[in-house]
Amino acid sequence: MEYELVTQEDVFHSMESAKSIGRKAYDELVTHLRADLLEAQRALEATSQSVIITIGGVDGAGKGEVIQILNEWLDPRGLDTHSFWDMAANATDRPYQWRYWQSLPKRGRIAIWFGGMYTDPIDKYVHERRHPEWAEEISREIRFFENMLREDGTIQIKIWLHLTKGAQHRRLKDLYENPQEHWRAMQDDWKHHNLYEHFSEAAEQLISRTNRKESPWHVVDASIKEWRNVTVGRLLHETVLKAIKLQAPKPRKKKIALKFSKVERDYLSEVDLDQKLDTEVYEQALITWQGRLHRLFWEAYDRNISTVLTFEGWDAAGKGSAIKRVTAAIDARLYRIVCVGAPTQEENRYHYLWRFWDPLPRAGRITIFDRSWYGRVLVERVEKFAEEKEWTRAYEEINEFEELLTSHGTVVCKFWLHISKDKQMDRFKKRLKVPYKRHKITEEDWRNREKWSQYETAVNDMIGLTNTPNAPWTIVAGNSKKFARIQILQSICRQLEQALGNSGDQS
Amino acid sequence: MEYELVTQEDVFHSMESAKSIGRKAYDELVTHLRADLLEAQRALEATSQSVIITIGGVDGAGKGEVIQILNEWLDPRGLDTHSFWDMAANATDRPYQWRYWQSLPKRGRIAIWFGGMYTDPIDKYVHERRHPEWAEEISREIRFFENMLREDGTIQIKIWLHLTKGAQHRRLKDLYENPQEHWRAMQDDWKHHNLYEHFSEAAEQLISRTNRKESPWHVVDASIKEWRNVTVGRLLHETVLKAIKLQAPKPRKKKIALKFSKVERDYLSEVDLDQKLDTEVYEQALITWQGRLHRLFWEAYDRNISTVLTFEGWDAAGKGSAIKRVTAAIDARLYRIVCVGAPTQEENRYHYLWRFWDPLPRAGRITIFDRSWYGRVLVERVEKFAEEKEWTRAYEEINEFEELLTSHGTVVCKFWLHISKDKQMDRFKKRLKVPYKRHKITEEDWRNREKWSQYETAVNDMIGLTNTPNAPWTIVAGNSKKFARIQILQSICRQLEQALGNSGDQS
Repeated sequence: MEYELVTQEDVFHSMESAKSIGRKAYDELVTHLRADLLEAQRALEATSQSVIITIGGVDGAGKGEVIQILNEWLDPRGLDTHSFWDMAANATDRPYQWRYWQSLPKRGRIAIWFGGMYTDPIDKYVHERRHPEWAEEISREIRFFENMLREDGTIQIKIWLHLTKGAQHRRLKDLYENPQEHWRAMQDDWKHHNLYEHFSEAAEQLISRTNRKESPWHVVDASIKEWRNVTVGRLLHETVLKAIKLQAPKPRKKKIALKFSKVERDYLSEVDLDQKLDTEVYEQALITWQGRLHRLFWEAYDRNISTVLTFEGWDAAGKGSAIKRVTAAIDARLYRIVCVGAPTQEENRYHYLWRFWDPLPRAGRITIFDRSWYGRVLVERVEKFAEEKEWTRAYEEINEFEELLTSHGTVVCKFWLHISKDKQMDRFKKRLKVPYKRHKITEEDWRNREKWSQYETAVNDMIGLTNTPNAPWTIVAGNSKKFARIQILQSICRQLEQALGNSGDQS
Repeated sequence: MEYELVTQEDVFHSMESAKSIGRKAYDELVTHLRADLLEAQRALEATSQSVIITIGGVDGAGKGEVIQILNEWLDPRGLDTHSFWDMAANATDRPYQWRYWQSLPKRGRIAIWFGGMYTDPIDKYVHERRHPEWAEEISREIRFFENMLREDGTIQIKIWLHLTKGAQHRRLKDLYENPQEHWRAMQDDWKHHNLYEHFSEAAEQLISRTNRKESPWHVVDASIKEWRNVTVGRLLHETVLKAIKLQAPKPRKKKIALKFSKVERDYLSEVDLDQKLDTEVYEQALITWQGRLHRLFWEAYDRNISTVLTFEGWDAAGKGSAIKRVTAAIDARLYRIVCVGAPTQEENRYHYLWRFWDPLPRAGRITIFDRSWYGRVLVERVEKFAEEKEWTRAYEEINEFEELLTSHGTVVCKFWLHISKDKQMDRFKKRLKVPYKRHKITEEDWRNREKWSQYETAVNDMIGLTNTPNAPWTIVAGNSKKFARIQILQSICRQLEQALGNSGDQS
């Protein structure tokens, strides 16, 4: 994806200089600003949009103070503040964006992010001496994230509170000499002051790369507190009002549908559905591969490698029973199964990917998704629950999501359980005869069956567009359940062995 | 609270012995059982009840296997399995029951708990050589928890899979000799086998103390797998069906309302509402106490001591502005504010205390509740959103909840902001004049005002019944906002200093 950057110039020098504001003028400005902000907040509540305010800046510029003030000016009932500092292992254990997904505002609400996604990369850049190429890669991920949310209706306001080195020195000295405001973080602040140029360079690397027309940075001179507060408040007010007026995010210049290039290959027809296994061979193979998988999952646990297993397939393709053959091989303490149905009212108040982030596995664990985010490009596409521009951009979003998982070290296995249309009918009929299986056949299954060819198209597109090297699809020949189960077990073993660097049992 | 224990005798010896079941008979039994279980699960979905199945037992008895089988027999879409093993710091950082509250099933759903609340105490009893008195205390807490959920409609099935020492030895030997089933946890299993008597004693201590008529333990002989599986399945089926038939939990023999003894004391009238502070004194005091609080919170952070601040009060009593004076003293990274309104649809699918567990502070952090669980005995009582039996038992539930917090080391401060009825009217009128405060006055405020005396009664009852030594109420004289703010800051400082073992600034 290409983004239009606002400028590659020194973002800090183009900043407007602070002007002093008298006490009385300030009080008056604030009175009006507060009313305006509350009005904007009310207006926001009625929309399906949400707001993220990122407050970054140099030490001593008063990030914490500004956040306090926004908490004072806004209605706290529609507001949450998040800092990403001193995270617990449940966050650090998972792909780094997990914490941000956990901190998204619901539609109609505002989230303030202390430092947001930028604190960590800036620190890493300074302290781990990362390179501009690294900054480019992390910036690309941030741009993708911000753009994805923007297209989903999240208004983003990114504010950088700036001080020149001299102003920072004066501010820190003031703070230090005032015992009431002298606080623990001071030591770090002075340390950072001495690294001022390094931090500036790091911030500039990140800011200039994420400063886009649709999601610009606002560099605010923080040397005069009143100016700083009013400027931030106004930015917030203007941005929110403007975005609400636009309501639905504007179509981008490049037509979005261009992202989607239809897949011509018919993956499904390439599957040999006649493959099967004799009972005896199957039973021996089952024990062998389950045992192997069992040991591999413990090894992955010991090495903090997580696994995501995603199962999609036709109705009655045998997803449930295949999952059971997999879980039979895993210690019950290591895995969890997530059954994905239609999103709840609560879940609909977020980006569609939101509900898949929370259950991602902790280090060394396994999450099994029985249906998944691919619903976006399958049922939501076919049934038109998602608009065309929504599902067409989903392929790229899904690839990025899975890329975040695999680059964190998570093993991602994806299965499409394929069967023929006739086989499906056989199984529907059989199910109706078994008392404890009857509940599995619903009206919906019959309706879905009528749309078989539409689903075929959707499945082929899905496989063609999301079959990435690190998160490949396995198309399972499901007409024989026995064959399918062994194929799945083998496929998971292979991917795990690759991740663990084993060439098999010998290692 | 008194509970009727089923028996203090040796719970394991009274167990029914397993009988062998032939392959064909087993298959037939299972076919029917699965249909029955699914039917019960369907029936459950339509109720406001939920189910927790705790699977405990000795090593080698097949807890994991039984959980796998239940996952196979039940419809996974209405089922979640939780193990409390190798918890991340976000759980271990918080009061120990946090993890169980996070794992509660929604109404209509089933949760399987691997070991549940019992694994930890049994391990502690064995490895840390705890005493029976300790077992009694932890059992009391568990009984309270189970009873509270039962009264809220949660069906609880507690199953202990038992093996004699000889049977355990045979099972472990079998497992060890079968390389396909030989797995990592084996070493622990043999270690535990050598401690068999210790584990038995520990389990008996806990089981006999939590074996109540309303929530009995089922000790199942696990020496024959088929018998074990069928017995567990049947227990589940019978218990769920029986509980659903009863629908609403039966009133207990002792009438529940007896728990509630009206409070005669009029706490509110004892408050001297004329207390006030001059602006100059106030401004100096504000700086002093905010500075002190700031240092105390950092010290608490360093020592992993968490704080819960709870604010309740009349409409327009100044809760919001008082909270701002408190947060102004805290680093924005350390606290979070939770604004409590009417529960959402989602939240109503759980026990009313559920939504307050998740935001409890991590080690060293602060959570500020702007309104809280006291809504149960205030608005829900006065507006009759809760039934009488519900709000009358809430006092005890709340005391237990706060006791779990304080015994974890959390500092709990509770404020009732009191003002006179006239002062409220003044403030309502003033608010209507200020543009950014106008939104604060709603129809509801006027309606609440008409119920002033009903709220007075509710507040006096609340204070009288929940003013515990470790979680005391501070009734704030709120007619003067300045006085109130300083009173609150002082009160928090005092409680923190006590918890930190300081006698003030000198330490």
